[in-house]
Amino acid sequence: MRHVTQERALRTREKLFRAGAEVFDEFGYSGAGINKILERAGVTTSALYFHFESKEGLAKAVMNAQPQAIEGMLHSEGLQRLVDITLVWAQRLQTDPVLRAGVRLSVEQGAFGVRDATAYLSWRGIMEGCLREAERNGELRCDLDLEEVAEFVVGACTGVQLYAQLVSGRQDLPKRTVRMWELLLPGVAVPEAAARMDLDPMRGISA
Amino acid sequence: MRHVTQERALRTREKLFRAGAEVFDEFGYSGAGINKILERAGVTTSALYFHFESKEGLAKAVMNAQPQAIEGMLHSEGLQRLVDITLVWAQRLQTDPVLRAGVRLSVEQGAFGVRDATAYLSWRGIMEGCLREAERNGELRCDLDLEEVAEFVVGACTGVQLYAQLVSGRQDLPKRTVRMWELLLPGVAVPEAAARMDLDPMRGISA
Repeated sequence: MRHVTQERALRTREKLFRAGAEVFDEFGYSGAGINKILERAGVTTSALYFHFESKEGLAKAVMNAQPQAIEGMLHSEGLQRLVDITLVWAQRLQTDPVLRAGVRLSVEQGAFGVRDATAYLSWRGIMEGCLREAERNGELRCDLDLEEVAEFVVGACTGVQLYAQLVSGRQDLPKRTVRMWELLLPGVAVPEAAARMDLDPMRGISA
Repeated sequence: MRHVTQERALRTREKLFRAGAEVFDEFGYSGAGINKILERAGVTTSALYFHFESKEGLAKAVMNAQPQAIEGMLHSEGLQRLVDITLVWAQRLQTDPVLRAGVRLSVEQGAFGVRDATAYLSWRGIMEGCLREAERNGELRCDLDLEEVAEFVVGACTGVQLYAQLVSGRQDLPKRTVRMWELLLPGVAVPEAAARMDLDPMRGISA
């Protein structure tokens, strides 16, 4: 019995999380009324408060789930893995409500009085991990501070995404991400590694 | 008489603009009540509607005034001018309410239902102009699409700013901007031009 209850609770949490992502993606934080979320999830107010404490709690959970939504889809390593993270992210942002809502909430959080760097710091950690591996593989220029590079890539992706959203509703984000790497690789990678990188934006679909 | 009236109207507009920038910077769009702005400006509601039509109109005016706030302060040319734009911007964002509010509103605009790329496109145009000059001066690698480079720099600055705001309240933005150029210059400039660039973050104060 206990097991069944736990499973049901997990399903309820997942329904709420998913509905929250969809509604935050579509309406932003302020426009996402709690009733809209509960209706879409088909659950009660008390479930929301039990699992996430508040609308803000749910928003933070969605905001901070971005890295998990990507990491499981990668098979490459080192510098190519770092590139792939950004290409998969750029492609999946076209359709995945969790990523879309996560990015929207991260960027707009100041407007609803939240200042939570968790998602950015998780991305930084993951990207720094790829860079450490790339360094061990001899792919990087030797004068780099890897934490700084990771922080710059997180920031640059965030801003390129914002720009793409304003000028094309994000449709050209994959192409812009490829261009970012074309500009960045000479400053980051040794020439042989730069030449070896696969920058096909469709890696974002097949990777 | 007519002249005096026009001058007074301009002063009123300037007061409203300034008060709007300060209040938007401090409270964001939703938190910036019209009365708060009018009180700080010491003008009437009708003046706001006469000069800006609405709170949204005032917000757009502030958002799109960023480039003018910077351009007059520059004395360099070509690639150094592009670098200086970003260094001056990073420094002045510490204190200038017009820039601070402009950036905040640009980033958070989705949260209040606005989608206005004007400020980003002005920056792109200005930066592309610097790059064209740099190209004529032989400072750039020959395989670049200058519009794409300009768009990337606008996006990257936006994102680095957002990252800096979350982790340091923007204090380390000048340092992060210098690092951005250290990573980007090898992909953008010929080696001699890259070596010649002055990346002292204090150029943002003295330039």
